[in-house]
Amino acid sequence: MPAPRQVCIAVIGVGGVGRCFLTQLQDLSARLSQSRLNPIYLSLILVSRSSKLLHSPSYKPINLATWEDDLNASTVSVLPPSEIASYLENAPARVVLVDNTSNQDVANAYPLFLKKGISVVTPNKKAFSDSFQLWKDIFDAALNGQGSGGYVFHESSVGAGLPVISTLKELVETGDEVRKIEGVFSGTMSFLFNSFMPVGGGGGSFSAEVKKAKELGYTEPDPRDDLNGLDVARKLTILARLAGLEVESPTSFPVQSLIPKELESCSSGDEFLARLGEFDDDMEKLKKEAADEGKVVRFVGSIDVAKNDVKVGLEKFDVSHPIAALKGSDNIISFYTKRYGDNPLIIQGAGAGGEVTAMGVTGDLVKVIRLLS
Amino acid sequence: MPAPRQVCIAVIGVGGVGRCFLTQLQDLSARLSQSRLNPIYLSLILVSRSSKLLHSPSYKPINLATWEDDLNASTVSVLPPSEIASYLENAPARVVLVDNTSNQDVANAYPLFLKKGISVVTPNKKAFSDSFQLWKDIFDAALNGQGSGGYVFHESSVGAGLPVISTLKELVETGDEVRKIEGVFSGTMSFLFNSFMPVGGGGGSFSAEVKKAKELGYTEPDPRDDLNGLDVARKLTILARLAGLEVESPTSFPVQSLIPKELESCSSGDEFLARLGEFDDDMEKLKKEAADEGKVVRFVGSIDVAKNDVKVGLEKFDVSHPIAALKGSDNIISFYTKRYGDNPLIIQGAGAGGEVTAMGVTGDLVKVIRLLS
Repeated sequence: MPAPRQVCIAVIGVGGVGRCFLTQLQDLSARLSQSRLNPIYLSLILVSRSSKLLHSPSYKPINLATWEDDLNASTVSVLPPSEIASYLENAPARVVLVDNTSNQDVANAYPLFLKKGISVVTPNKKAFSDSFQLWKDIFDAALNGQGSGGYVFHESSVGAGLPVISTLKELVETGDEVRKIEGVFSGTMSFLFNSFMPVGGGGGSFSAEVKKAKELGYTEPDPRDDLNGLDVARKLTILARLAGLEVESPTSFPVQSLIPKELESCSSGDEFLARLGEFDDDMEKLKKEAADEGKVVRFVGSIDVAKNDVKVGLEKFDVSHPIAALKGSDNIISFYTKRYGDNPLIIQGAGAGGEVTAMGVTGDLVKVIRLLS
Repeated sequence: MPAPRQVCIAVIGVGGVGRCFLTQLQDLSARLSQSRLNPIYLSLILVSRSSKLLHSPSYKPINLATWEDDLNASTVSVLPPSEIASYLENAPARVVLVDNTSNQDVANAYPLFLKKGISVVTPNKKAFSDSFQLWKDIFDAALNGQGSGGYVFHESSVGAGLPVISTLKELVETGDEVRKIEGVFSGTMSFLFNSFMPVGGGGGSFSAEVKKAKELGYTEPDPRDDLNGLDVARKLTILARLAGLEVESPTSFPVQSLIPKELESCSSGDEFLARLGEFDDDMEKLKKEAADEGKVVRFVGSIDVAKNDVKVGLEKFDVSHPIAALKGSDNIISFYTKRYGDNPLIIQGAGAGGEVTAMGVTGDLVKVIRLLS
């Protein structure tokens, strides 16, 4: 019988996703340690939020039931990524860094962590959708976990817990030819357009629907951060690169912003929302045009691999199209490939939210643990 | 830089799926061996079909470009699984057995292979849907690849290359509560009912649609092998077990057969087809009942985990339901879970066919190679 195995975990970021992840980690840790034949022991050796950090020079595990009080009681300020990396590389077992932030500085340090043999799992889109150079640096350093590098997994960077990235990677790795990827990649945009123009008619004015979405918590604090399309552009950048395209950045292809030019300079989200109604006529016109053709309007992203064509924006869909039939804030992603022919492989479901995003992170962690132990 | 790594492959079954797999293996083998930093060398050391076997006592690799001619030229008769296992366990590297048959005897030998450290990847449903004892024996012997056992993966046993099993496993492993699984699990049944009762009306008589499906190659040589529901029952058995239910066998829960009692004793598929029209009125009645309610009829499987309720048969669906909107011979599988709430996680696409089934097998092989090397 093999010796008991240990894996160390470090968690940066304890916001909505981070808290859900830590709850899932407590559960996972209990189950893995109780395995009859092959127990694996997970040790949380660092947890940090924007201002504070909890760790132990002797790598004494942090209690998963009391991490929050212990972090609150910590007097240690947050450390720069390079110092965190130095602490982690001397840990008594292989280490997985779980980055639950959307911080660019942490993302920029992934190559450093990976070169030191520290694995990374994260929903942080910035690491994989920023410059193509950072993408290359990350995957060169990772070497898929071979050599001395750590493993890197980022399922939740697109579609939260939905198996989008793993499916695309498998299509590519098994030699299928991915021709087109198309879908609704933003929970906010999904909710907004499913409400603004539901199949069968109805829906309020665009500005009213944006206000409703904000009230229900479906938008960022400043809704312009959703309406500018950059979140979708980042996800498209990631998928296009996995499909083999060298996309330079999320601003290197056409992205339609739903922020009227005249409102780009509004000093606050509130001012923006107060004035958005001035432009409702433009959106009503689009809606009417689509309705006259028996279609609905949706905010989608698409990648045509052969044409090297990536774009994000409004498009019209027949009411019988799966994209038109989407409900709530669900995402839908269609993969058109040589093997699947005319009927794409489709994945659909909640693409945002703390629990399902954390699930993608926990799922990646399970994969890394299996590869490490 | 680490030493070059080698993994040995043995392939049993070279029918439709097996041939597609061997083509994909040739491609995969070339790509893995050409990896700049971490080449992995795959050696095909055994290939067999029902009557013949090709291998080499010195484990000299079989040429992936000429395996078919070489197998045809072989004078060795097929060996029993126990002798194959003895040959494989002395191979010069870790071995993955790829079983592309639907043979029960081979399936029964999985525990033997796994105990010898030989990993198994397969689309063979019989191994995972036969007695619950065989299921336990397989996974006890595999120990998830820990200890001395090999790994076992069987993505293509449900939904071919669609990520159905990996998704269900991840939901369970990350601590979600799977409440219900529902879907269309048979390409044949999908095609049949999408033609018999398309949304919007139309469709021929049931017997005419069965004949058409057979002519187009969508059914087994004897269509009763599809219409008895056993194929779907096997898939449901696998998913229910992964969701935690101890389903004894695919005949231990209600399965609706579409073979009229009076035709069960027909001596041939042709006689059955010739007489099926006598029962068209029954199916027309069902169709009319559903149409009067604004619904369509589909052949589905469902698992209610809390109620320990597994069933297979005809059900009516609203025309706006995703199951009603299915096209061609596509499968659709919906996972209702605590985290995903009212809107399920849905996976949809081709669930049968040589290329996509082989893709699931190749994808599993990639996973095992990563775990072994």
